[in-house]
This record gives sequence, C-alpha cells and structure tokens, in this order.
Amino acid sequence: MSDFTEVRVSDLEEFVIECFEKSGMSNEDAKITADVLIESDKRDIASHGVARLKRYTDGIKNGIMIPDAQYEIIKETPNTLVVTGNDGLGQPVSYKTMKLVIEKAKKNNIAFAAVRNSNHYGIAGYYAMMPLKENLIGISATNSFPLVVPTFGKDALLGTNPISIVAPTSNERPFVLDMATSTVPRGKLEVYDRRSKPIPEAWATDANGLPTTDPGLVLRNVKERLGGGLLPLGGALEETGGHKGYGLAMVVEIFTGILSGGAFGPNVYGILKSSTNVCHFFGAINIEAFIPLNEFTDSLDSLIKILHDSKKAKGQDRIYIHGEKEFIQADEQQEYVRLYNRVIEDIKGVGESLGVKASF
Amino acid sequence: MSDFTEVRVSDLEEFVIECFEKSGMSNEDAKITADVLIESDKRDIASHGVARLKRYTDGIKNGIMIPDAQYEIIKETPNTLVVTGNDGLGQPVSYKTMKLVIEKAKKNNIAFAAVRNSNHYGIAGYYAMMPLKENLIGISATNSFPLVVPTFGKDALLGTNPISIVAPTSNERPFVLDMATSTVPRGKLEVYDRRSKPIPEAWATDANGLPTTDPGLVLRNVKERLGGGLLPLGGALEETGGHKGYGLAMVVEIFTGILSGGAFGPNVYGILKSSTNVCHFFGAINIEAFIPLNEFTDSLDSLIKILHDSKKAKGQDRIYIHGEKEFIQADEQQEYVRLYNRVIEDIKGVGESLGVKASF
Repeated sequence: MSDFTEVRVSDLEEFVIECFEKSGMSNEDAKITADVLIESDKRDIASHGVARLKRYTDGIKNGIMIPDAQYEIIKETPNTLVVTGNDGLGQPVSYKTMKLVIEKAKKNNIAFAAVRNSNHYGIAGYYAMMPLKENLIGISATNSFPLVVPTFGKDALLGTNPISIVAPTSNERPFVLDMATSTVPRGKLEVYDRRSKPIPEAWATDANGLPTTDPGLVLRNVKERLGGGLLPLGGALEETGGHKGYGLAMVVEIFTGILSGGAFGPNVYGILKSSTNVCHFFGAINIEAFIPLNEFTDSLDSLIKILHDSKKAKGQDRIYIHGEKEFIQADEQQEYVRLYNRVIEDIKGVGESLGVKASF
Repeated sequence: MSDFTEVRVSDLEEFVIECFEKSGMSNEDAKITADVLIESDKRDIASHGVARLKRYTDGIKNGIMIPDAQYEIIKETPNTLVVTGNDGLGQPVSYKTMKLVIEKAKKNNIAFAAVRNSNHYGIAGYYAMMPLKENLIGISATNSFPLVVPTFGKDALLGTNPISIVAPTSNERPFVLDMATSTVPRGKLEVYDRRSKPIPEAWATDANGLPTTDPGLVLRNVKERLGGGLLPLGGALEETGGHKGYGLAMVVEIFTGILSGGAFGPNVYGILKSSTNVCHFFGAINIEAFIPLNEFTDSLDSLIKILHDSKKAKGQDRIYIHGEKEFIQADEQQEYVRLYNRVIEDIKGVGESLGVKASF
C-alpha cells in the first residue's frame, strides 16, 4: 500500500477554506491561506503544505494567531512600506503586502516592504513568484523560529531564514530560487530521524556545539533548548563556508525584523511574549527601468540553456535550474495532489474538531 | 626572516597612483583605484590588494583594460541607472556609479545600478561600505571569470560572483558581509597548493566533475579548461546545499550581466572577445523610509551583542560578526600596511618597467 493518496485539488481547497473560516477567518483570508498551502503541496514541498493546517488552527485556538486580524500600514512612501500583521496569520498580510509592492514597483521601478507582527507565512517562493505575472523580479524573505547556531556558537539564535528571488524568462521556466539559509530545514532532520538514518555533519550540532550525525538528539536538544541546533549553509567551519550561511541569515534578520521594527534573532517566537512577531520582507523590481524586458528574458533563457546543455559530472545525467523540479511537480498536480496518508488523517481530524467534513 | 614587511601607507599610495598614471589613467581614476587596492590590504584581504597591480598594468598593456575610458550612463531614472564602463578598469566606474546611487537613494529611498563592460573591481565590500557614511544600507555584487561548476555539472560556467551587503550600527562596528558565492575563491587553492596541503572536498572538482583534494590538479584543469572547477557554497551535493550556492551565483549573474545587458556566465572574459565585459550591481537603501535610523542601528547593535555574548561551541572562544576581523586588521594598519615580500618585489618590478621608483 502506498504512503500517498491523490486528492482532488478543488475538494482540498474547499475543505481547507472551510476549516479556516470556521476558525474565524474571513472568506478572503481563508482563500489566500489555503492557496499558499496547496500551492506548496503541488510543488512537492510537503513540509509547508496542508500538513501545517493543524499548527495554524492550533495557533488560532491558543491565541497566538488572531484569525480576523487586519493588517495596517505603519509607514508608506511611493516605493516603501512598513506593515504590521497585527498578529494575524502570515499568508494574508504577505499576499496583500506583495500586491501593494507590485503596484508601487510598476509606478516607481523598485519597491520594498518590511512586515512585522506576523506569523509563519508558508513558502517564501509563493510571494516572490507573484510579481512574475507583471514580468517583474520578485524577492521575499522571512525570519523564523531560532533554530540555527552562529559559526563557533552553541545556542540556536537565528532562524532558518529563507530567501526567495524570482526572475522572468522568455520560453524557459522562470528562475525560482527559494532556499533556507541553513544547510537544511528542521523537517529534513525529522525525515532522517523517522528512518533512523544518520545525518551529514554539515547539518546540525549537539549540545556542545559540535557536529553530530544523530538527528533525534538534535531535535530533542532544540526542543528543550539544551544547546546546539541547525548549521548555517556551509556547515560548522569557516573552512567550508559556514560563516557565509550565517551571514545570509543575518541579512534576512536585518531586512525583516530589524527594518520593520519587529522581532529578530532569539526574540522571534520569544517565549515570554504572547506574540510570535515573525517578520517578512518583500520586493519587486521593474526590469524595463534597466533594459528592454525581452532582452532580459532572452538572456536568462540563454544562460539556462547553456547550463542545461553543459557537460555533466560523472554519474549525473541532468543539471537543474532553480525551481525546475517544483514546476515539474506542479504541472503534474494541477487537478490532483499527492498527500501523505498520515497528513490526510491529520487534517480530517482538524476538520472534525471544527465540524468540517472532508469530501475526500 | 619574516615573509612580510611593513610599508608606510602614504608611500604605497604615492607609488601605486604614479604607476597607474604612467599607464595612462587620470589622477582621479588612479587615486580611486589605488585606494580600493590599499583598503583591501589594510583589511588583510591580500588577494585583492596591491598584489593585483601587475594584472591591471598588464591588462592595460594588452588592451583589455582601457586606462582613460570614460564611463557613460546608458539609461537613467530617478532611482535606477544602467552604466557602461567602456572597458575601463572596474574601480573608477564602480566608485562613481555608487556615488550616483547614494545620491538617488537619499532622494528616492532605494536606488539600484547595473554596470556592464567593466573589469575586475577589487573587493565588493569597498563599494557596499560607501553608503555607510550616509547611514544607508549598501549592496554590491559582480560577476567574474567562469571558475564555478553548477551542481551536477562538469564545466566551470559561473563566476565566484561575490555579494556584499552592509548595514550601519550605533556603537558596534557595521555589519559587512562580503562573500564569494563559491565555497572559497581561487586564491585559497593557490595557498594550499604552495604548501602541498590537501583541500577539503567541498572546495573543488576534478576533470570528471568529482570532488578532489588536489589543489594543483584543479588549478591546472581550470587553466586549460579540461573540466571541473570550484564548487558553489555548500559543495558538490544537494545534500550539503550546493544547489543553494549555485543559486546565489545565478542571482548575481541575473543582477549584474543580465540586468545590465552585458556578459553573463561563460561569456564573461569570453575568449573570442577583446573585452572582458565584467558586470557589476550597486544598491543603496534609505533606512529612514522604513523606521527611524536610531531604532534600526540600536536593534542591530542589540543583535550583535546577543551573538557576541552567547555561549561558544566546545573549543571556541569567540563568535565573530561579519566584517569584524577585517575592521580589527584595518585599525592596526592605518599608517603601515603589511605586504608579502614577494608582493613588494613584484610591484617594484611593475614600477621599474613604468619608470616609477618606490620610496619603500
């Protein structure tokens, strides 16, 4: 028996929207949030898909996420925005802010927004891909729960802090970089732990701050804040570039928590506060302010073609461009999406507790 | 006997400026270029310091760098610029473009410039630090000679493509990230090769595209374009995040070569062209458009203090912030700078061939 079941996307959407509405969200916000989650499942990023439903409805129940929060603009100029999510879910405020950023970039070439007092916003790439419809470059980043240790440090003080940068093409698929600035996100350790598989040394450290291959140990230590955590991209040593991943995580803290006047570093999900105060950054850039759009998209196509057609390392038969694997998955999963059976059970349980019946 | 000699900075400046002037550069451009090189030596980034003098004067002799080239603005809006260096040295066009970007950001909050038809510009951080004087955030990036292999690829198709992002602080030293998007730059392999030391597997691949620990082999293969090259930050495998470093290198190609209408990927230093067509990107962001400056700088100070004061991994006694090591070096080397004796011999040789006598 397979671990997966195919679920009709329209059924799943209906179900997730109803769960959010029953939790107190407006129909508009429920639709946005459901779309971000299901888009993630279509792209086979299961860790950020509907598997998160329970964490969100629990967050609402616990009062950490305010389902009917209205976002507010704190400061606005023709090309910048500071927004507060007022402790609402991350998806609605992020979607609405990126919409405003796109309008500003169309009029003023470059526009940036920093958002504070928000929550987990799903995949960074969802928002960075929104400007694609207008042929703009998109940028999105967020800080997150402190899980990552600085180089030579013992305590997890920084988030996995993903960055997404997206650029339009002519005939090739768009370039979609969407990466945690840690070597891997926490979910990867959970997968290895379930399979009792040792993890590579570049992934995480133990309570002494030294690299370990035991994923269960790291997950327990992180949960109980005993020391150690995920390693920045590049691993534990300067020799392998760990200070660079650490630097990228810092850049995300600077553009999200610090630039928005929100929380940063270990203060995100601060245990003494009622608010998680997760912070985001959004940007859009009008290519036409620099060169004709078709020149840009043709050049990017050309670079992608050079990479695709280039010689492969021994034992490899394909070179991927960023976002390509996810587009292949999404193409296959427009009508039906594959979900883990345990995720289906889990979200049906959420539905039952809210009085929402699944048609799948 | 030491490998180093201390040279008075004012003597070195005078000498380097005169060498550039004798090569056909204006006094203004010679001063800018000398300052970028010597600032690098002060910060102990010897690979990008006056050790490069011969490459530049040779580039001028060979006609690849035009000493009296004037930069030209191709396209301009209130917050964007596209500039051509007209095949001049990288430093003057970069310095002058960043000056314009700073003025635009002061008036319009965010400003970006893409530069084409330039050459090697020295340390990325020099330009990203320029906006600090105005308390702006600074960004600088450049593409470069194709030395880096894409994940699963065999051929070096992308540059080491450094990114620098700089942010102001209140009492702490500024945050100065300045990183190649490869695990290490080529210079590191040269150092290990001279000492006959094996390199870590995350650094480079052999002619089959497989990780190797032999630095001499990689340097020869790259020189003769036999296959292999430097690895992106994260190494050869997706498991260790190599596709992320490869993605960051792509982002730099997109914002430099592609956005400027210049050369990208393997076309940089294209062997069939007379021009290297190196391309750069510069950005500046006015923090006051988002939150009061002192709120931003106090928060960044606070994050830096949290990191400095946090627990160290076993065997470590210090956690560094990006740029900190270089500031410590620069503080010590304001009047006298340490140069390798072989670098002193080398630049004196350049001087002799140009009729410039060193006073050191």
